[in-house]
Amino acid sequence: MTPLRVAACQINPVVGDLDANVTRITAAARDAAQSGAQVAVFGEMALTGYPVEDLLLRRSFAVDSRQAVQRLARALDDAGCGDLIVVVGFLDRDPDAPETSTNPTGGARNAAGVLHGGELVARYDKHFLPNYGVFDEKRWFTPGDRLVVLDVDGVRLGLAICEDVWWPDGPVAGLGELGVDAVLCLNASPFEVGKPAQRREVVAQRVAEGGAPVIYVNLVGGQDELVFDGDSFILDADGAPAVGPQFIEFTQVAEVRPLGRPTAESVDGWTVETVSLPARPNAQYPQQVIGWSELDELSQIWAALVTGTRDYVHKVGGRTVGLGMSGGIDSALVAVIAADAVGADNVYGVGMPSKYSSDHSKDDAADQAQRMGIHFRFEPIEHMVEAFVGQLNLSGLAEENIQARCRGMTLMSLSNLDGHLVLATGNKSELAVGYSTIYGDAVGAYAPIRDVEKSLVWELARWRNAVAVERGQTPPIPENSITKEPSAELRPGQKDSDSLPDYDVLDDILRRYVEQDQGVAEIAEAGYEPELIRKVARLVDRAEYKRRQYPLGPKITPKAFGRDRRMPVTNRWHDPA
Amino acid sequence: MTPLRVAACQINPVVGDLDANVTRITAAARDAAQSGAQVAVFGEMALTGYPVEDLLLRRSFAVDSRQAVQRLARALDDAGCGDLIVVVGFLDRDPDAPETSTNPTGGARNAAGVLHGGELVARYDKHFLPNYGVFDEKRWFTPGDRLVVLDVDGVRLGLAICEDVWWPDGPVAGLGELGVDAVLCLNASPFEVGKPAQRREVVAQRVAEGGAPVIYVNLVGGQDELVFDGDSFILDADGAPAVGPQFIEFTQVAEVRPLGRPTAESVDGWTVETVSLPARPNAQYPQQVIGWSELDELSQIWAALVTGTRDYVHKVGGRTVGLGMSGGIDSALVAVIAADAVGADNVYGVGMPSKYSSDHSKDDAADQAQRMGIHFRFEPIEHMVEAFVGQLNLSGLAEENIQARCRGMTLMSLSNLDGHLVLATGNKSELAVGYSTIYGDAVGAYAPIRDVEKSLVWELARWRNAVAVERGQTPPIPENSITKEPSAELRPGQKDSDSLPDYDVLDDILRRYVEQDQGVAEIAEAGYEPELIRKVARLVDRAEYKRRQYPLGPKITPKAFGRDRRMPVTNRWHDPA
Repeated sequence: MTPLRVAACQINPVVGDLDANVTRITAAARDAAQSGAQVAVFGEMALTGYPVEDLLLRRSFAVDSRQAVQRLARALDDAGCGDLIVVVGFLDRDPDAPETSTNPTGGARNAAGVLHGGELVARYDKHFLPNYGVFDEKRWFTPGDRLVVLDVDGVRLGLAICEDVWWPDGPVAGLGELGVDAVLCLNASPFEVGKPAQRREVVAQRVAEGGAPVIYVNLVGGQDELVFDGDSFILDADGAPAVGPQFIEFTQVAEVRPLGRPTAESVDGWTVETVSLPARPNAQYPQQVIGWSELDELSQIWAALVTGTRDYVHKVGGRTVGLGMSGGIDSALVAVIAADAVGADNVYGVGMPSKYSSDHSKDDAADQAQRMGIHFRFEPIEHMVEAFVGQLNLSGLAEENIQARCRGMTLMSLSNLDGHLVLATGNKSELAVGYSTIYGDAVGAYAPIRDVEKSLVWELARWRNAVAVERGQTPPIPENSITKEPSAELRPGQKDSDSLPDYDVLDDILRRYVEQDQGVAEIAEAGYEPELIRKVARLVDRAEYKRRQYPLGPKITPKAFGRDRRMPVTNRWHDPA
Repeated sequence: MTPLRVAACQINPVVGDLDANVTRITAAARDAAQSGAQVAVFGEMALTGYPVEDLLLRRSFAVDSRQAVQRLARALDDAGCGDLIVVVGFLDRDPDAPETSTNPTGGARNAAGVLHGGELVARYDKHFLPNYGVFDEKRWFTPGDRLVVLDVDGVRLGLAICEDVWWPDGPVAGLGELGVDAVLCLNASPFEVGKPAQRREVVAQRVAEGGAPVIYVNLVGGQDELVFDGDSFILDADGAPAVGPQFIEFTQVAEVRPLGRPTAESVDGWTVETVSLPARPNAQYPQQVIGWSELDELSQIWAALVTGTRDYVHKVGGRTVGLGMSGGIDSALVAVIAADAVGADNVYGVGMPSKYSSDHSKDDAADQAQRMGIHFRFEPIEHMVEAFVGQLNLSGLAEENIQARCRGMTLMSLSNLDGHLVLATGNKSELAVGYSTIYGDAVGAYAPIRDVEKSLVWELARWRNAVAVERGQTPPIPENSITKEPSAELRPGQKDSDSLPDYDVLDDILRRYVEQDQGVAEIAEAGYEPELIRKVARLVDRAEYKRRQYPLGPKITPKAFGRDRRMPVTNRWHDPA
């Protein structure tokens, strides 16, 4: 028997842009068909984008999503792909289901639609609903209790959605009992450091449990603070995974062969729906060979920061970005991320020296701008600062902060004049301990390194310069910006180390306290002084109000100080340990 | 048989301040005992405060909460209340339960602890976990599956927690089958307009379902954006509810009599735990007569805004507040809320006229400050604005915004100098359509009227002045601030009505679009032009990024643009209707 050719279509949808997503999916399906695919699988909620959040409480949106599925089915048919079987994630909802307080979404489903011959011929509803970290799916969706098998000329394909493959004794176990030949899994799985390996490990457990290969199709692209890295792959019991590329739209084709295993028509605890569909003629193309090597960790992180920044700017309809460049390492790194994201010619750097700025600050910023070919200007803030200091008689912290704020106001004014989206340049270590000026360096629409700790800022800077050298390009970041001692330069001779421990110590304590939720006693076991741990913990707790007003940025760790970590602002708890 | 005297203790805990909460609970319990109470019931999570949010992912916090229950039991005993039966909400967690991705809280429970004789003698776990609006309890807690009955010398008391009384066929139905004489319900039920009537209605259904009176005990006080209004009450099948006061700490005592109904020891689908406890000697005090009349709607709203503001300032350790006073109605109203919250002597108003400010702006602000006896100063912003306009050559929107931003910077500078918490003065209608300057009028730690639509701002101003007249005081708000046409005064002759529809029209469309999630077609049925509805809807959708950086404020409606409404910033959906 000839194998069935299944395409994993990794696309970058835009949340809520249903017509554009219909077009995008149709184009990818047509390409897949031209590569000989008989089935094309897209990511979770690919039609609406993910997550649509409380937009789905709006009944008119749910109606529009259901109609968009019908439009997509017809568009596929019109594009000559009517005989291609297309599996695509969408928001389903019974338009007659009542909305109640316990079920405000009127039974909304995170669904996979199966399109064929211009029609929606089958639907599967996600069973396991994640409700931790960045996920709120128990708020939005009703869980499914059906198993769906597509019998395509005798090749049996089971359906699953994302969380469904993360836990045992769920849909994949049921599909195993039904004797499927492959599981098609639609995902919206955001990037975090280490996530690809985690996916492989957990899917390998499902391959073993279900006794069938899993074709894992993820979304790609940035959506607010989430970055979907793609990383779609095909894993069977015997071999190494066939892994597609991360961070770009891509289609790869897998061949599914009947396993000749026993089948069943029912399984305890589930309603089973089997849909028989004809396979379009197999064009007998040779099997596609996947030749992507996995990216190393720093490359993945860089791609996530660039993708998150690019998609935020473009998806809100922007083109150019502006940022303050101090000659320090944080703004230096953000400038390079920005240029990699939207192109050097769309980046507008502003040097805003004060009387406390060192010469090297000015020189390094200008040097970098020239190396990179971005726009750059100086706007000294002395007169503005003097207007405030003189009239309000400012000193101490008030005088330090007004400098950062005059810079923020300058950037926002230039943004108002020229339409640039402002990028905030603060890093995660600063955000954690509140080492930033609210309405000062914290202004902006997007904060590319808000989830990048200071130690990693330096590492990425060195790595990105080395990549440039490898490619025969000028390293974008001046060596001096990397090696100088960090300082906010808000008063004479100020150094970060005046008020903070060394960043390698600080970052390790922060990882334990923030990402791993360790208590003081647990962190002390790693050899730190309890007094230091308590000091850092209090700084973190007290800075919550600042983080609430900080711009969004791409999440790359388990706790990005965003919707993945929901803390009270008013909180008096301190670990008694 | 003499009735059992049960005290409903309505207290204002501080999130995470376990030792202070132990002290607070002990003091209220002692007072209750001195009023002849034999049982004292406190609110949901009264020991930890509510909501503790992801703080409960920290194992050391859960351990501390469990230890605090033991400390509380001993403190009660030490205070001579060991023979009082105390029922108090706390965070329970099996210290040995593993933390996993699906269960990151290691089986944390939203629990009621029963304390007697210096010990924790019984525990009940909340069964129904709300996961909509501001609630994320499926993220945090494992649901309980046990019914708990306290048999106090033959009077049978069942336990329930908040959401447990909002739905049929749950714990109250089970307790009814067990034949309890009253249900003690612990609540953390935040205020919204209309909420008290809703509570009465739903609890009446449970009284009927369970065949026993319900003693409903709520928390009181502000916690970030939530304001608990108290409103504890006792409702039985026959009579009108005995309602306690809103917005203050208070203890009321109810008498519970055996109903002489049939009892059972088990009920299908539940594990039943019955704990027999002796009643302390009844001091035979006369039954307390509750003489509180319910507040009218505007009084409730005012109290919620004042309570939210007061508790935010005090719970973060602040004392004084600063705000910009433009002579307009929004800042005029916030000044009065601030004075009612923290005292006129702790309020610092700043008039910040620009060259576009009308004379009446300055006069009205100064007039109000004098009427109220708050601190007031003028800081003209002309020099600061000129420093930016001159150097950056600003015009148009950039010139408008820099005025608002120089005011914001001035307030923050004075805050840095003098330690005042800055209050933002924006209203809900502005926040909805983005009619505010980010980093300008949007600066602040707390925004008292961020959930108050413009029409209600005027209504509250007139109401508050009338209250002053009734009390023989000077009306705090100058009549001119109430009657003048609204204007941001950022350019000559500017009026809000240049770019926005009349506020009564705007507010009605916003209520339908935001609070009721109506689509364009549905809103058009109310008689508005679809083009106008679409314009408003797009303004709302596009302003999401500004709202993300806006200060917190007290929630008084079903959708306060906070954690009760989670929308993507990058969202391209527009209702096709």
